[in-house]
Amino acid sequence: MDPKVTKLLSGRNLVHLATVMGDGSPQVTPVWAGCEDDGCITVNTAEGRVKHKNVLRNNRVAISVASAEDPLEMATIRGVVEEIVEDHNYVHADRLTRQYMDRDSYPFKRPGERRIVFRIRPVSVYVMPRIVPSE
Amino acid sequence: MDPKVTKLLSGRNLVHLATVMGDGSPQVTPVWAGCEDDGCITVNTAEGRVKHKNVLRNNRVAISVASAEDPLEMATIRGVVEEIVEDHNYVHADRLTRQYMDRDSYPFKRPGERRIVFRIRPVSVYVMPRIVPSE
Repeated sequence: MDPKVTKLLSGRNLVHLATVMGDGSPQVTPVWAGCEDDGCITVNTAEGRVKHKNVLRNNRVAISVASAEDPLEMATIRGVVEEIVEDHNYVHADRLTRQYMDRDSYPFKRPGERRIVFRIRPVSVYVMPRIVPSE
Repeated sequence: MDPKVTKLLSGRNLVHLATVMGDGSPQVTPVWAGCEDDGCITVNTAEGRVKHKNVLRNNRVAISVASAEDPLEMATIRGVVEEIVEDHNYVHADRLTRQYMDRDSYPFKRPGERRIVFRIRPVSVYVMPRIVPSE
């Protein structure tokens, strides 16, 4: 993956994940994301959320991310959720908690919630060219 | 509109706008957005961009926004582009430049580009509850 994208997705930058609703309208929500060695992007969510239902019906997704420190560093990605993996023991959620909050244990657990991971295979990746404002 | 959403959309927070491609897959890109007195959200883009083509085919869109200063302040919106307005004189682009960059004139003009404004009527607005991390 482009090193700029890897950097954007390895930091504390909130990622915006788009899916498609059953009625054909788009849906987009902020999520945490991580980069995997095999080139996949992983997103942590919970069973039964709207985005989960949408992905079960249509596994095509899109991602938009900008650097929190430098919003002119941006990338957009289109891809497919090639696998949904259980994270009921919060192993992946804890990993993203280290990435995003620099603490060891996911602090937003809810009773009865079952975490899952979308493994997203990028189909197209677009790093926005660095635009320079005119004087 | 919920004052939290108005605040999120009146600041310097990058907004992520999702549309749907002709093949039914989602697309999402970072944009600047503004709040209007009539409750619409306006987004500035240019003629011929992918999002413009998508909206001409399917006017349903979604928005995700988080506060740059406090990423736990988040909102998602689903709506319809009820009108596309010309901004060839950069009046709206200049206004958003004041909002986002605190300067008077849109500094990213490109030769031959024709700016346009999506007027988005919100259909559903979701302000994410303020979650508190456990100790």
